Amino acid sequence: MPTDDRAETRITAGWHRHGAAWAAAVRGRRIASRAAVTDKALIDAILEQRPARLLDLGCGEGWLARSLAPKGIAVTGIDASASLVDAARRAGGGDFRVADYADLPADLGVFDLAVSNFALLGHDPVEHLLAALPQFLRPGGRLLIQTLHPLAASDSPYADGWREDSWAAFSDAVADPPPWYFRTLGSWVRLLSRHQWRLRELREPAAPGAARPASVLFIAQPD
Amino acid sequence: MPTDDRAETRITAGWHRHGAAWAAAVRGRRIASRAAVTDKALIDAILEQRPARLLDLGCGEGWLARSLAPKGIAVTGIDASASLVDAARRAGGGDFRVADYADLPADLGVFDLAVSNFALLGHDPVEHLLAALPQFLRPGGRLLIQTLHPLAASDSPYADGWREDSWAAFSDAVADPPPWYFRTLGSWVRLLSRHQWRLRELREPAAPGAARPASVLFIAQPD
Repeated sequence: MPTDDRAETRITAGWHRHGAAWAAAVRGRRIASRAAVTDKALIDAILEQRPARLLDLGCGEGWLARSLAPKGIAVTGIDASASLVDAARRAGGGDFRVADYADLPADLGVFDLAVSNFALLGHDPVEHLLAALPQFLRPGGRLLIQTLHPLAASDSPYADGWREDSWAAFSDAVADPPPWYFRTLGSWVRLLSRHQWRLRELREPAAPGAARPASVLFIAQPD
Repeated sequence: MPTDDRAETRITAGWHRHGAAWAAAVRGRRIASRAAVTDKALIDAILEQRPARLLDLGCGEGWLARSLAPKGIAVTGIDASASLVDAARRAGGGDFRVADYADLPADLGVFDLAVSNFALLGHDPVEHLLAALPQFLRPGGRLLIQTLHPLAASDSPYADGWREDSWAAFSDAVADPPPWYFRTLGSWVRLLSRHQWRLRELREPAAPGAARPASVLFIAQPD
């Protein structure tokens, strides 16, 4: 189950093909949980760390860099989708590069904080990324991952595996969005631990009064 | 909200008053999730650690000691309820003592592993326990906590707080079971971190095919 080259290829191809629809959804703030809860939770968590240089993993169309630039944070964004990186460059606010998680450019730089916002979508590339990432962080640097809360995300059997997605709530035009690899909470914690990341904090951003969190946010540090 | 002396007192008094009903429910294996999933998950996790000496925190009527004694594991059980400790002593399998989490006896001993199975029910006493416990573990010793999975346990707003309980599913006789203090997952992780415990693993025991885990199991180590 974990290794599925076809699914990994569908992720890359799907995000490239649907880059324009995705950029429109993000820029129009059409994804309700992001507008209501998770964008602010991410930015709050970033500002607490007071980074000068930030690496945005899976930057997409670049909204995070544009939000952080006025606060004096220098953002380098990478994304495997050339169409999304183009969109990010046109809008500005950071330095954007096309790059695969499994093959980070050696000259990427050294950062205070690496962030991934709902962008660790595959299986093998994520393993490669977590193995290589510490060399791009300064001593004491941290990793911040925001992702779907595994227990809010799914009514399927609670087990790791590939899942189909739907963008119906925010994009009429996309009938075949890319798949993603679901991990249980236990599996996220194991994944970090396997690559010698130490979990410092686990946050569960939620709308006020909600019975379920909107996301989970891991803050980790190389061991 | 966190500090509530009345609730803490109701915990102690309630477990003492309902000790016989509780012992009957555990010994009759009437709590479905324990019989189906969580007892085995706990014992498997304990055996992986290969402890020679184990401290059972909130041992209740002592089932865990009786399960582990045949495997050569020496169990010391503590519980705040004298009636439950009496029941445990009568059944044997370990060394059982009445003790409060907030005031562990200095001569308790040194253990390879401390375990708490659905028995960290209050607020302040749990903080005291986690602060004092490292001195009762040998270097490299671990703590294993099994508790209700915060996201499976509640449809209330997802936030820390006192909760009333119901024993209706396994005990007709008890209309007023003791309350317990609900913690979110993020709050459990913060609690461990605040007391210098390092989270090594987070497991989510589930029945096969279940959409939700039956419990969460934290494996931690003093920092």
